[in-house]
Amino acid sequence: MDETALSQLLEDVRSGIVDPDEALVRLRRLPFVDLGFARVDHHRALRQGIGEAVYAPGKTPEHCAAVVTELLSEPGSSPVVITRASDDQLKAVLEVAPGGEVTATGQTYTVSWCGALERPARVVVITGGTADLPVAKECEAVLRAFGFRPQLMVDCGIAGVHRLLASVDDVTSADAVVVIAGMEGALASLVAGITASPVVAVPTSTGYGAGLEGVTALLAMLSSCAPGLTVVGIDNGFGAACALSRILG
Amino acid sequence: MDETALSQLLEDVRSGIVDPDEALVRLRRLPFVDLGFARVDHHRALRQGIGEAVYAPGKTPEHCAAVVTELLSEPGSSPVVITRASDDQLKAVLEVAPGGEVTATGQTYTVSWCGALERPARVVVITGGTADLPVAKECEAVLRAFGFRPQLMVDCGIAGVHRLLASVDDVTSADAVVVIAGMEGALASLVAGITASPVVAVPTSTGYGAGLEGVTALLAMLSSCAPGLTVVGIDNGFGAACALSRILG
Amino acid sequence: MDETALSQLLEDVRSGIVDPDEALVRLRRLPFVDLGFARVDHHRALRQGIGEAVYAPGKTPEHCAAVVTELLSEPGSSPVVITRASDDQLKAVLEVAPGGEVTATGQTYTVSWCGALERPARVVVITGGTADLPVAKECEAVLRAFGFRPQLMVDCGIAGVHRLLASVDDVTSADAVVVIAGMEGALASLVAGITASPVVAVPTSTGYGAGLEGVTALLAMLSSCAPGLTVVGIDNGFGAACALSRILG
Amino acid sequence: MDETALSQLLEDVRSGIVDPDEALVRLRRLPFVDLGFARVDHHRALRQGIGEAVYAPGKTPEHCAAVVTELLSEPGSSPVVITRASDDQLKAVLEVAPGGEVTATGQTYTVSWCGALERPARVVVITGGTADLPVAKECEAVLRAFGFRPQLMVDCGIAGVHRLLASVDDVTSADAVVVIAGMEGALASLVAGITASPVVAVPTSTGYGAGLEGVTALLAMLSSCAPGLTVVGIDNGFGAACALSRILG
Amino acid sequence: MDETALSQLLEDVRSGIVDPDEALVRLRRLPFVDLGFARVDHHRALRQGIGEAVYAPGKTPEHCAAVVTELLSEPGSSPVVITRASDDQLKAVLEVAPGGEVTATGQTYTVSWCGALERPARVVVITGGTADLPVAKECEAVLRAFGFRPQLMVDCGIAGVHRLLASVDDVTSADAVVVIAGMEGALASLVAGITASPVVAVPTSTGYGAGLEGVTALLAMLSSCAPGLTVVGIDNGFGAACALSRILG
Amino acid sequence: MDETALSQLLEDVRSGIVDPDEALVRLRRLPFVDLGFARVDHHRALRQGIGEAVYAPGKTPEHCAAVVTELLSEPGSSPVVITRASDDQLKAVLEVAPGGEVTATGQTYTVSWCGALERPARVVVITGGTADLPVAKECEAVLRAFGFRPQLMVDCGIAGVHRLLASVDDVTSADAVVVIAGMEGALASLVAGITASPVVAVPTSTGYGAGLEGVTALLAMLSSCAPGLTVVGIDNGFGAACALSRILG
Amino acid sequence: MDETALSQLLEDVRSGIVDPDEALVRLRRLPFVDLGFARVDHHRALRQGIGEAVYAPGKTPEHCAAVVTELLSEPGSSPVVITRASDDQLKAVLEVAPGGEVTATGQTYTVSWCGALERPARVVVITGGTADLPVAKECEAVLRAFGFRPQLMVDCGIAGVHRLLASVDDVTSADAVVVIAGMEGALASLVAGITASPVVAVPTSTGYGAGLEGVTALLAMLSSCAPGLTVVGIDNGFGAACALSRILG
Amino acid sequence: MDETALSQLLEDVRSGIVDPDEALVRLRRLPFVDLGFARVDHHRALRQGIGEAVYAPGKTPEHCAAVVTELLSEPGSSPVVITRASDDQLKAVLEVAPGGEVTATGQTYTVSWCGALERPARVVVITGGTADLPVAKECEAVLRAFGFRPQLMVDCGIAGVHRLLASVDDVTSADAVVVIAGMEGALASLVAGITASPVVAVPTSTGYGAGLEGVTALLAMLSSCAPGLTVVGIDNGFGAACALSRILG
Repeated sequence: MDETALSQLLEDVRSGIVDPDEALVRLRRLPFVDLGFARVDHHRALRQGIGEAVYAPGKTPEHCAAVVTELLSEPGSSPVVITRASDDQLKAVLEVAPGGEVTATGQTYTVSWCGALERPARVVVITGGTADLPVAKECEAVLRAFGFRPQLMVDCGIAGVHRLLASVDDVTSADAVVVIAGMEGALASLVAGITASPVVAVPTSTGYGAGLEGVTALLAMLSSCAPGLTVVGIDNGFGAACALSRILG
Repeated sequence: MDETALSQLLEDVRSGIVDPDEALVRLRRLPFVDLGFARVDHHRALRQGIGEAVYAPGKTPEHCAAVVTELLSEPGSSPVVITRASDDQLKAVLEVAPGGEVTATGQTYTVSWCGALERPARVVVITGGTADLPVAKECEAVLRAFGFRPQLMVDCGIAGVHRLLASVDDVTSADAVVVIAGMEGALASLVAGITASPVVAVPTSTGYGAGLEGVTALLAMLSSCAPGLTVVGIDNGFGAACALSRILG
Repeated sequence: MDETALSQLLEDVRSGIVDPDEALVRLRRLPFVDLGFARVDHHRALRQGIGEAVYAPGKTPEHCAAVVTELLSEPGSSPVVITRASDDQLKAVLEVAPGGEVTATGQTYTVSWCGALERPARVVVITGGTADLPVAKECEAVLRAFGFRPQLMVDCGIAGVHRLLASVDDVTSADAVVVIAGMEGALASLVAGITASPVVAVPTSTGYGAGLEGVTALLAMLSSCAPGLTVVGIDNGFGAACALSRILG
Repeated sequence: MDETALSQLLEDVRSGIVDPDEALVRLRRLPFVDLGFARVDHHRALRQGIGEAVYAPGKTPEHCAAVVTELLSEPGSSPVVITRASDDQLKAVLEVAPGGEVTATGQTYTVSWCGALERPARVVVITGGTADLPVAKECEAVLRAFGFRPQLMVDCGIAGVHRLLASVDDVTSADAVVVIAGMEGALASLVAGITASPVVAVPTSTGYGAGLEGVTALLAMLSSCAPGLTVVGIDNGFGAACALSRILG
Repeated sequence: MDETALSQLLEDVRSGIVDPDEALVRLRRLPFVDLGFARVDHHRALRQGIGEAVYAPGKTPEHCAAVVTELLSEPGSSPVVITRASDDQLKAVLEVAPGGEVTATGQTYTVSWCGALERPARVVVITGGTADLPVAKECEAVLRAFGFRPQLMVDCGIAGVHRLLASVDDVTSADAVVVIAGMEGALASLVAGITASPVVAVPTSTGYGAGLEGVTALLAMLSSCAPGLTVVGIDNGFGAACALSRILG
Repeated sequence: MDETALSQLLEDVRSGIVDPDEALVRLRRLPFVDLGFARVDHHRALRQGIGEAVYAPGKTPEHCAAVVTELLSEPGSSPVVITRASDDQLKAVLEVAPGGEVTATGQTYTVSWCGALERPARVVVITGGTADLPVAKECEAVLRAFGFRPQLMVDCGIAGVHRLLASVDDVTSADAVVVIAGMEGALASLVAGITASPVVAVPTSTGYGAGLEGVTALLAMLSSCAPGLTVVGIDNGFGAACALSRILG
Repeated sequence: MDETALSQLLEDVRSGIVDPDEALVRLRRLPFVDLGFARVDHHRALRQGIGEAVYAPGKTPEHCAAVVTELLSEPGSSPVVITRASDDQLKAVLEVAPGGEVTATGQTYTVSWCGALERPARVVVITGGTADLPVAKECEAVLRAFGFRPQLMVDCGIAGVHRLLASVDDVTSADAVVVIAGMEGALASLVAGITASPVVAVPTSTGYGAGLEGVTALLAMLSSCAPGLTVVGIDNGFGAACALSRILG
Repeated sequence: MDETALSQLLEDVRSGIVDPDEALVRLRRLPFVDLGFARVDHHRALRQGIGEAVYAPGKTPEHCAAVVTELLSEPGSSPVVITRASDDQLKAVLEVAPGGEVTATGQTYTVSWCGALERPARVVVITGGTADLPVAKECEAVLRAFGFRPQLMVDCGIAGVHRLLASVDDVTSADAVVVIAGMEGALASLVAGITASPVVAVPTSTGYGAGLEGVTALLAMLSSCAPGLTVVGIDNGFGAACALSRILG
């Protein structure tokens, strides 16, 4: 219900086409559907510029299937994505919506439907190590659903800085960069130091001990001496993809 | 042993009906029963105005069954509730007290007996997401045992604020509101900002990474800019129900 | 702008009294005043059932004076309170609004104007120690502004439990209780264990070392074994007063 | 020393214009100047697309003056900014570089020279409260130095959500938004929920107690249920301005 | 009001010497005095076996003077101690109670009156470094007030283990040992490893950085591999003295 | 190798009975046995006044069996205890040392051999709830091995304070008290407030959410307003038993 | 690509042997191989003076096998090590590279190939307890791969300090010492206090409760009063071995 | 009292030159002097291979002067260093020992006497920023006292990585490197990635917000992906110098 629609509604009231009480009801009737266990938001794509997404953990397979079904019921719908689905949840959603594109992300899956048209912006996703792959895969799958064709560079950690420098042209020519790293998370600072493009950092919970399940990488990225670096939550590859979708319009 | 009883006892001593030594013994004999592994408190309902409750984790199925049996042995007893019971514990208590009302709360169960008479106060329980359902179900089950008939609104998180606004009348007309949310817990501030009724916030451990198992939502709710919001412990749906029972008399 | 006003507005549009474009403008014109450095909210009292409050820290004396002036400009206004004002801020607000009731709260001041009519509910404010007095004084001053006449019991900490028990009748007969305690915060559990009324706990930053500036008391209160205890933020005497205002209607 | 320059150098070596040993020396000679206590980086603007910046704390007034002098010595220089300067540091830098534009940011100052040409992108900076003003002022000053003309909206916290909604058109039509908030930081989630543009959140250390000097707002923003929100460090208004400079090209 | 007194009271009621209502009043009249800002506990010494103590921070000089006066008003009183008194507080208490024994403890003072009779137990107080002296001095002053004549060994830290071993006979022959140490707090483990007597460890906030204001020493002492070591709060020399008073009867 | 033995050794050297080189060797030969994976300490009982103990986690069943065998090989040995043994470890140690007294402590076992002679001191072990039983059982089993006959009082938490008060004589007449509690740990303060005997508090990891796996109870106990309370590590029932052994001589 | 090679390349360009474009390509071609999921670094041994290492967790068995194969493909290769391999990963790497030396490290394995020539430096690895063995075994296995023949001393914890003192000659005559300890980690301070050689401390996550999964030992080691002690991450036996390799040249 | 001396003592006992009782006394008489408030350790230099050091904070100026005097009283003494001395402490020590070499380290001073003979090892000290200078100056002053002539490179932070690379030869040819950095501390990983020498990292408390007073840099350094990096405590420039003294023999 945007401003134009509101103007029209008031005009219709004035001209007698719509009754005031009816108008009041309509003002209340917002574009979501209440399934009891979820209030499915049908205009988030419009409002936030990104596709609909379902975060699977904490939902039963039946919950997942019902929400996906509802989201896909909208004609001309924008991309629909489910992240962190377990084997059971994957099976349930593919049963009700068979055409989904499935990406394995460690022990879980990202599934998408109705992928957006390809967008031209050049996006690079860089990881510090091989163990960051599940987060990178989630990020890549969501970016693909949103129409991007990201380039993935895995295992460019700072302990062997030439591995990143060898790809320096790809990095500096990208329109936006996602850096995914655990341990000390220093790769994000390094990348932000060599490019003028937006850099979104994703700390990961890989590593052990003093890595504190990703808190160390998170704090390090937030304290970066490279100005203009921004950060999303630990292991949040999905969030980084959404941030890029906002940034790249 | 309230003040009246104490006066009477002293009067009885004065009049010779009760011997001083006997009085001393009685002063010590308080209304609980020691089962060895538990001291079952038979006048908590009287003292704290809420039903008896057993927190199942850390107790054997036999412990659970014995405590429930003891609590129900009191004639004219107030509501008895057991929370977070496992499958084994559930089976054990239903064997000794078959009439319990069972509610599934994620991987555990809430069971209640001797539910209170229905109370007229209007109570609303709102969750931020679907994954908060187990905590909401525990809260709802305990509220029902205490005589309330709460209205449950699931998945009203702040990312789609119209989902809450659509139910704004239900919220503002409630006598008290429980808000259950994980992640950044902002829903509690939003609700407290639109209603003059008491709002009790329950942070949940849903989410991952920087959510820190509910600590983030907890801290956020405690730091709320909405004045007069109160908070209970992480995932403590039971506690919120008890708080409402105190508040609504 | 409540529902009645919205209905009326739409009715006026229908009947031609109000132009649709004008209606749109009015829908936007909400009851706050933008002073540039603050958006003063003129209907919070209506919406949240509590008086207007200004949190002084971080504002210049001129900011404070301007916001208080604006709040008091509303005819028939509800109570206005400023908390944690420094000497300079105190001087500034009393210059523009001389009639304020001033309460010293440690190194700062609480000032109130237009106190509400006296309300009959019995409220007790209990502290664990003498060092908790500044927080208790803030709580008491705000409660008084809201029309309550709270009874203050200072230094009832759990190390000498008879000091609380001596006042047990006052505690159990109160309609609501605020418990203010630092260190291990155990007093809140004890009070909640002996009364059926609502109990709001305020952890304080008194103490040292393992008290962690109030975090220990906060965590302890949230983990209380006394069901139905609710908690506000550290040192937040104002918040506890607001919570009681909500609870006692 | 970009790739073109490197190619030219090699070509010059091949054609005998440059001696190999001389080339080796040049490859080492990078565009910074070592002042002993600082290595001033003369091509950061080129590499990272943002102006030169000096973080004043921990530097003597003489350090500050010398670094600013060095940065401004480059002909055709990009914007130069110093942040968090104390009174002494302010005096020192204005003595050596009198034309700086000074902005008071709480107890400190931001000073800029050689501001960039005005850029057309619409930028909005929103704060939760008045106490967030110093951080917002730093962000605004740096954005202005970079050529933006940000719109500042102060005191739109979630406890009176209509204060934000009244400016909803300004928010949704902006090309990028900075949200600056302390306490529970919920404003960032709310803003990200209503706009499709990039949103950069800055947690602030305003507030007290459970706000944990900004850590609560930081964690809450990172755990936001609004997808695509990105975060910079606590009180880092400068960092948010740099992030916007990257995002808006 | 111990058990004997209670028996006697009931006997008196039975024999008609005391009226039941009067008895009820007496049961309520417990041995503390309410000064408004403090409830002074006149039988703590009896109940807890240790002298009366006043923790000065957070009290005005007038508060301190009044509480000390009240405590000393009891005829035949047990030791009275005030800890962490500032210069102003010291002056105020010595004015109303001139005979106090004053000990400087860093920036504050411990003062005691009515010291107990000398007790024969051998007590040793060991510190890791010179910077731990203020805490050791507080502990020593309180121990002296309680009748002990502790031996103080300063600067026996583990980095030069022979400094402790040289005094090993004094340590192993003591009836109880207090170990006061900051930094890594390892001295407590070492001492507990060589003596069979009770060892009470006091972590101190000396040191910097990773010492985390005493939290590191606290955690280390609690995790000691030396069985039977007990710990009190950070910098709590007073608490350690009280623990020894309990232990040594 | 105590001082007497050292004197004798030197005397023997002087008189020519022992060769200097031989003496040097003997000075090095201390009473432990190196099994390769463990250095078994044969005079800890002598030195620390408590029995030998083996902490099972992290050891293979073979390690456990070998260490227990070694400890029991000493003629006239003091009590030997193994704590937290798994089913496999239990089986292994009982095979090599069949006579052990086995106590179930939750999912693990405490086993002891060669229990000490009964000691007369009266010891009370109190728990806050039923879920604290495993820790209490470990504490009780070790105390029994050391010769004590502790009285166990389970489920005396502060929410029903009369449950503790009913046993107040048993508590105040004990020579030492162990308080085992999770959640907010307030029971320890309460107990220390009513007895003059030594009180050792054991925080437990029972509870959930804001209990932070026992950290909340730990901090609360360390911040207790009851003077002279001492604390051991989380869930460390063994440590509390050892502390009592030291305290009670 | 070291400085000599760079000089030669430029000389070759100058003399016409190498084309400038070709030179540019070569400058980019650094000695790593991109396997898609890993960028295998073929000159880390040269650059960092230590063998190649693969951290197994987070990699599939196939990943592990491919990286090991790649590393061993280099003729005349330096030592190759894989740490923390699971049973599946172990099987996969031994299949492609059968000659590896396998060491069990708790639930995982360290495997090495192409061990370096024996180096003469004397290295001692000391543990606080038996439970630290897996970390010590990892450290020992890596040290052996690097050519050292470390002496392992297990279970020398500070609670029985004579167990360490008995081996004091071995400790003080070592060229470098690794101390591996959990709980309070005090052993590291003790060792650093008796030797002039480099001491590298490894905190371990053994223990429970207040040990906080190794954080307590870590903080204690970093706060050590023994000057010159250095620390690596929790459980990082591999890191300590690498540090020794650097230190001993 | 080393092993040779012990052998000699025993030999003297055997030959009758020394009486056994006298020998016992000598064994106890270890080389420290007890000043009451400090046990000055006269053979630490011998034992730990580093000079004597006094940490000034927490000591009175008189304490400092007395300890320095005592340390310098030893004929042929090794270097004596006092760190973090305030103006008052500086004045006091220079009065009793005028020849000290004074280095300003931020608000404090490092003073040394009797500097060691120059040692040939090449040492480099690198800082991330100018604000790290005080820690670097402390490190440099202590290294100089120990006989090193360190090369200081200031402001080489990772945001402009070419500033470090320009000095890469100096770094890689050093015998040992100290890296001093705050914020995200990534510089240490980068340096350890390009050199085979020992690298000791010092996290600093510079920066603000998410830097958490140096904890972020500390955790990041401990989690470094560069193998063999070791770490000392926050701001511990002294400790890093001592570590290098151990490492370089």
